[in-house]
Amino acid sequence: MEEPKHKLPLRSSRLESLGDGIFAVAMTILVIELKWPDLEDDSWNAFASSFRAVLPSLLCYIISFIVLGIMWFGHRMMFEYIGRTNRHFIYLGVLFYMMVCLVPLSTQFLAENKLQWGTIMVYGLNLSLCNLTLYAQWVYAIHREGFLERELPYEVRKEAKISFLISPVVYAIAIIISIWSPTISIFFFILTPLLYLIPNKLDKYMP
Amino acid sequence: MEEPKHKLPLRSSRLESLGDGIFAVAMTILVIELKWPDLEDDSWNAFASSFRAVLPSLLCYIISFIVLGIMWFGHRMMFEYIGRTNRHFIYLGVLFYMMVCLVPLSTQFLAENKLQWGTIMVYGLNLSLCNLTLYAQWVYAIHREGFLERELPYEVRKEAKISFLISPVVYAIAIIISIWSPTISIFFFILTPLLYLIPNKLDKYMP
Amino acid sequence: MEEPKHKLPLRSSRLESLGDGIFAVAMTILVIELKWPDLEDDSWNAFASSFRAVLPSLLCYIISFIVLGIMWFGHRMMFEYIGRTNRHFIYLGVLFYMMVCLVPLSTQFLAENKLQWGTIMVYGLNLSLCNLTLYAQWVYAIHREGFLERELPYEVRKEAKISFLISPVVYAIAIIISIWSPTISIFFFILTPLLYLIPNKLDKYMP
Amino acid sequence: MEEPKHKLPLRSSRLESLGDGIFAVAMTILVIELKWPDLEDDSWNAFASSFRAVLPSLLCYIISFIVLGIMWFGHRMMFEYIGRTNRHFIYLGVLFYMMVCLVPLSTQFLAENKLQWGTIMVYGLNLSLCNLTLYAQWVYAIHREGFLERELPYEVRKEAKISFLISPVVYAIAIIISIWSPTISIFFFILTPLLYLIPNKLDKYMP
Repeated sequence: MEEPKHKLPLRSSRLESLGDGIFAVAMTILVIELKWPDLEDDSWNAFASSFRAVLPSLLCYIISFIVLGIMWFGHRMMFEYIGRTNRHFIYLGVLFYMMVCLVPLSTQFLAENKLQWGTIMVYGLNLSLCNLTLYAQWVYAIHREGFLERELPYEVRKEAKISFLISPVVYAIAIIISIWSPTISIFFFILTPLLYLIPNKLDKYMP
Repeated sequence: MEEPKHKLPLRSSRLESLGDGIFAVAMTILVIELKWPDLEDDSWNAFASSFRAVLPSLLCYIISFIVLGIMWFGHRMMFEYIGRTNRHFIYLGVLFYMMVCLVPLSTQFLAENKLQWGTIMVYGLNLSLCNLTLYAQWVYAIHREGFLERELPYEVRKEAKISFLISPVVYAIAIIISIWSPTISIFFFILTPLLYLIPNKLDKYMP
Repeated sequence: MEEPKHKLPLRSSRLESLGDGIFAVAMTILVIELKWPDLEDDSWNAFASSFRAVLPSLLCYIISFIVLGIMWFGHRMMFEYIGRTNRHFIYLGVLFYMMVCLVPLSTQFLAENKLQWGTIMVYGLNLSLCNLTLYAQWVYAIHREGFLERELPYEVRKEAKISFLISPVVYAIAIIISIWSPTISIFFFILTPLLYLIPNKLDKYMP
Repeated sequence: MEEPKHKLPLRSSRLESLGDGIFAVAMTILVIELKWPDLEDDSWNAFASSFRAVLPSLLCYIISFIVLGIMWFGHRMMFEYIGRTNRHFIYLGVLFYMMVCLVPLSTQFLAENKLQWGTIMVYGLNLSLCNLTLYAQWVYAIHREGFLERELPYEVRKEAKISFLISPVVYAIAIIISIWSPTISIFFFILTPLLYLIPNKLDKYMP
């Protein structure tokens, strides 16, 4: 097969821009599901009971927002290296975005039910699939010639793999624990975002 | 009529950016329509019946999301060749975006009713009109002098036409079949996205 | 007052990008308000009555979508000439976006009530304020030194003024007519978008 | 530790683009919460009473929209100076966006209850946290080497600090006043946006 003369650039910028839009909407509509109950009167008690009613949903909202923020960061970092796309890469991207768009649904499912294994499984599975489809894009891109814009050091490759896969592992553990104790399990979801605050080997590549 | 001295560039980038926003919102609000029923208790049965209740809507959501993803890809590819716009092209673009924004409505119509010819017709018609208005933009642009940024090989032109028009043809068949068997018809909608996974002649133009 | 050494570029691109986002969301959430009634059975009659029930809202949706599309086009064209912004220009932009974001509300108000002067007045006033705040940005920019990126021919200036102001004039007439006949009045809203299809003097500046 | 050879640019443009999306959605969904009551008949009285019913929510909507517009402007100005990002800066950005996305919730809480200290406190606290997390980004960036794209005059630094912190101070006063008089307190929220219309020392750096 001869080399076509008019190879298209297919730069990744528009896929990133679609992603920014999808993350922006998904993060914002998380809050549409929230409803702060009306106050009965001016008293402190009425306020406190209204706040207690919105608190569990608010916490779920905060966890999901931060998790989506971290995922967006991973997505954004990925494209520091990846500069081009093709049909298969974009289809993987669509799968990733599909999982991201489902996060408001599984967050609502978690927030509106009593804490239990069923909702935690759905929520954990959804978040894991986000990370795994994101990782699939990364693996596809680093093995495809002509996708990378700059040299990818071995250290970055290793550290990126850990960053992509640590969450699904923790979520899998949390799902198993939820069968015995949903309360302990939910702490895993609260603590996971903190893992991404720990200094890591990628920091020295950043400004 | 003399040639105006200050011909405007009218680059296509802002139309693409509006499109990215519209696709992002349309894809994300698909999920707002979904509601996972609350669980009655901790049992496996309660979970299974809740999941069975959300499943048909979830499937419709997944189909629509992937179809929109493929359309976005077509839209994105188109602008690898098209670099400029004018008033009429933008109005065609607005028609296309109008059809895209209706997809959440027709998806919901399909998901919330028993499978039958009426909802399948609306859904199939909506998706077909998306493709046809997208194709109208393409036809307008390739026949308008000064719109194309790079040479358009004959092979690409032919393959693009097939890609734009294959879906409306399949959907038309599916609508007709739905009069006899809505269940067979819905399989056409599930299978159509797979057509876009088959390697085609455009692949060699991509990185 | 001495000239500051570090005058900021304050390019208009981010204001345009916010605008693209706002238009994308406003155009898309128009459709969230639409609800296609469930079908009672498989019959043609059930479908027809369901379609008749959604039709008025669907028409309002289509009008609003196309009007927003034309406004977006005006906004987009404006920034072919305007390249910079400042505090006051951006505040005018925020007012414009506020009016744009209210369009889904006034569309819903129009769609959900019997056709009458009250809803038509709110709808017409909302659309007029969109055009007038957009025009205010234009007037501010063309009289501010350093805002224009390219020479603005007298012909464009005159034609732009007509384009910005023709709609508010037609809507004002439509509002007055609605006191006697809301049905005649609504035709003005249907016909106004067609005015923007007529070839005009700006066309020769476009590719 | 040796200097890594492949320091990434990590330009701020994608964070800005996510921000534009989030502001666009947050500003637009403010209006989703609004519902203009249906008209009972064609009379002026029916219209007037319907308008009176929507007016308080509409005012809250307008205040929140303008406040978000001013915040967007602050965010946009900040990135005239800041050109790069890193992990910690982006996490601060996610916190800021989280606060921005909560504005529709606290606006709705304010609009749907009788004016009283509880709702005013939530609303004022939400807006203050927006400004404070935005300010945290600014402080982080101006003290981090390599983040600034251009020289930051002392005057700008001082004026920016005032702009970021004046609102939280006013809101804190308003919250305290609301214990005695919610009506006086709400005027502080109406007047705060006007502070940003006063000419200030940053104007001379703009076109």
